[in-house]
Amino acid sequence: MRNPVLVEVVRGALTESRHRGAVAVVDADGASVLALGDVAQPVYPRSAVKPLQALPLIESGAAERYGFGDAEIALACASHGGEPPHIEVASRMLARAGLDASALECGAHWPSHQPSSQALARSGGTPSGLHNNCSGKHAGFLCVACAAGVDHRGYVEAEHVVQREVRAALESLTGVGLDEDVCGIDGCSIPTWGVPLDRLALAFARFGSGRGLEQKRASAAARIRAACAAQPYFVAGTGRFCTEIMKRFGARVLVKTGAEGVFCGVLPEQGVGIALKCDDGATRAAEVAMAAMIARFLPTDGEQRGALDRFVRPVLRNWNGIEVGALRPTDELL
Amino acid sequence: MRNPVLVEVVRGALTESRHRGAVAVVDADGASVLALGDVAQPVYPRSAVKPLQALPLIESGAAERYGFGDAEIALACASHGGEPPHIEVASRMLARAGLDASALECGAHWPSHQPSSQALARSGGTPSGLHNNCSGKHAGFLCVACAAGVDHRGYVEAEHVVQREVRAALESLTGVGLDEDVCGIDGCSIPTWGVPLDRLALAFARFGSGRGLEQKRASAAARIRAACAAQPYFVAGTGRFCTEIMKRFGARVLVKTGAEGVFCGVLPEQGVGIALKCDDGATRAAEVAMAAMIARFLPTDGEQRGALDRFVRPVLRNWNGIEVGALRPTDELL
Repeated sequence: MRNPVLVEVVRGALTESRHRGAVAVVDADGASVLALGDVAQPVYPRSAVKPLQALPLIESGAAERYGFGDAEIALACASHGGEPPHIEVASRMLARAGLDASALECGAHWPSHQPSSQALARSGGTPSGLHNNCSGKHAGFLCVACAAGVDHRGYVEAEHVVQREVRAALESLTGVGLDEDVCGIDGCSIPTWGVPLDRLALAFARFGSGRGLEQKRASAAARIRAACAAQPYFVAGTGRFCTEIMKRFGARVLVKTGAEGVFCGVLPEQGVGIALKCDDGATRAAEVAMAAMIARFLPTDGEQRGALDRFVRPVLRNWNGIEVGALRPTDELL
Repeated sequence: MRNPVLVEVVRGALTESRHRGAVAVVDADGASVLALGDVAQPVYPRSAVKPLQALPLIESGAAERYGFGDAEIALACASHGGEPPHIEVASRMLARAGLDASALECGAHWPSHQPSSQALARSGGTPSGLHNNCSGKHAGFLCVACAAGVDHRGYVEAEHVVQREVRAALESLTGVGLDEDVCGIDGCSIPTWGVPLDRLALAFARFGSGRGLEQKRASAAARIRAACAAQPYFVAGTGRFCTEIMKRFGARVLVKTGAEGVFCGVLPEQGVGIALKCDDGATRAAEVAMAAMIARFLPTDGEQRGALDRFVRPVLRNWNGIEVGALRPTDELL
């Protein structure tokens, strides 16, 4: 099955590029609200399931034990830009468990937030695991291990108790058995499990509503949603899609980006989960598609719609700031 | 017409992403050697035609007048990484015409070569127009204007004599009339003209063979090809596809990348030009497709084939250096 074109890139007189993909919008009972393209094919959710991967941090009592507030819990769900406040919170999470950056097994990269990257270089520094966009998630994993009194070393491996708990949470929310035949290694070295897009959407619908979940899990999901709504800066960073959308819509929208063009989200009031993947892995198109889904399903006033439209139809400017084109959703998404 | 999948991204057990596109391989008489997908649709060549855009610099006598050697001419064809030697040569080109960076109208951005970007930040500097990947091309444009004794200001505008000459060169090589109905503004503010992919391939076949060109233009094309073969570092930079391929194959291959997944090339011995575009604008896939075309059409020995295979099937590693996947061409390309 060929997925439809979801997003076009226009420049001057021509459509310059086209992004295909699939979109699933599902309610907490698993009923399809919208299905574009092949929503049954397994996709790696990558970082888009970080809010779900944070469930063991809450459910195990580790977050409470270490006194984590909204910022720490939001950072555990983050693909952050490596800005100084992100680094501070990640460091604090590790310190609460008696650890430091040397315990992180995510690898190091320069901050994606360019001013922070340049400031780090100007100071003569080089990045550590703390600057990895996943450091909050990994700090959370380490806290789960430490609170349980198990050796944290190797916590990124599929066989480690931390990843077994993460996998069990994903299996129960998606209703899918996650085996080696759908496993890959993520950018930060943990396993990433392929899940059909409609089951990912179901998982987020359940995560957003608590429907079909045990009380403990439903409470943990609500705690994570509240943290992301309260501290959206810690889920991504300055000017980033996830942060800007959650700043604008608060608890009405939870969205999380993943590598290779994946985006997941929840509209709790509407009781639906959203999961989408661009065939080609393009983040720019996944953002447009997610913004279009929010515009389609979330009732908004005029000001909110105007703010959202900046993400539905982003303008492209060149190095001189001249408007040279735009991204736009196709009719499939509208 | 839907273009075929040209490149797949595999991770663990699954194909994670897919890139569609079109490929045209054409000889200097315009005969099709290979056509995959819709090769008649106009695409913006973007930076992939920089070697053709450099023709007026040679044909006008400006390169000779200012004493330009291989490095300057190669840099006029470059999307460079902003490494210090690139900046030095661009500065020298401007100085020969009595100008400095303030004359550049391309806009500024941080070097794409990360160590150079970090070194610039460490030194307390900020980027100027010289660091723009197009600064060599723009320095060449400015030299054309100065050598002709015309006001260089506004040289990026379609109506300026420099852009009129560039457009005339593209029209004669492609055999296509370039009008406003196929015009966009490029990242560096000059016009980019939409050209059918098969006509772009024809232009490169002519550029690579001189067939069908006036003697003066054929000589200029040969001069540009020789400069890129002699100084491939100045066409891109450390570790970059264009540089690595031309370092390996010398005058047997000229390749040039463009934004939004465009790649053009010449195999002079085979008398063919190559033009390809990934629908979604992905450079990673355009590189794989171009490498596959070279492997398909250029006779190579075992060592050359091994070197090329690194670009035909690039390995993906995560932040810990673990091999997590690969890109690979589909059977369409092989």
